[in-house]
Amino acid sequence: MTATTPDQDQDNLAYDVFAKACPSRTTLEHVTGRWGGLTLGALFEGTLRFNELRRRVDGVSEKMLSQTLHALERDGLVHRAAQPTNPPRVDYDLTPLGRQVAERLLALIHCVEGSMDDVLAARARYDETRGAL
Amino acid sequence: MTATTPDQDQDNLAYDVFAKACPSRTTLEHVTGRWGGLTLGALFEGTLRFNELRRRVDGVSEKMLSQTLHALERDGLVHRAAQPTNPPRVDYDLTPLGRQVAERLLALIHCVEGSMDDVLAARARYDETRGAL
Repeated sequence: MTATTPDQDQDNLAYDVFAKACPSRTTLEHVTGRWGGLTLGALFEGTLRFNELRRRVDGVSEKMLSQTLHALERDGLVHRAAQPTNPPRVDYDLTPLGRQVAERLLALIHCVEGSMDDVLAARARYDETRGAL
Repeated sequence: MTATTPDQDQDNLAYDVFAKACPSRTTLEHVTGRWGGLTLGALFEGTLRFNELRRRVDGVSEKMLSQTLHALERDGLVHRAAQPTNPPRVDYDLTPLGRQVAERLLALIHCVEGSMDDVLAARARYDETRGAL
């Protein structure tokens, strides 16, 4: 939105998450929020129903998952399809845009998971130093 | 930590952000939290002092930035260096691990920024449909 710096060479100068009022910051929050990220990650593996999603995203409440799905659907990242079955069934999957975003998010998630031995070692060092003060 | 699925072929099966108790979930939250993500993104461009960081991460309070930096330092992603100058000066930069994580995060940020035209169009369609109900 504002504050483009000379070293930005990507072609998306119109939006900037560093600017407080830029709408891209809200979308980044939906994508990286506690439940948004895990929901996108889970749906990257395939279509899921609400209760399947809830089991996969360990710890999420029904209310939070419902809010998360609405925000992601509104941003055009998740597609909600009510199936004409009896009993009625609602399937969730990623849109093509949602897949693009989820792919980057999963690369980040796998990087974090793969770094955890180092992270835990760093935490132990940090706590030891602080404890020794 | 648990719940590794057969289709996971990366070599970091020990940690799983989908499991509630896995420590990788906390680190992912530090990295993707509202201010954590922007802080890592800002430091990817180079070393910054506290006040420089505060200006770059538009909207963050002194207290929140300080908490964010402590969490990232404890996880071994950010390095804090007190310079022996007069007046004293504290520089922050990314560790090699922090750079790896920030690189993935910036790919995600750029993807989101580059998708905003589509996201805003999706939001308008969604609100129109809901308004019409």
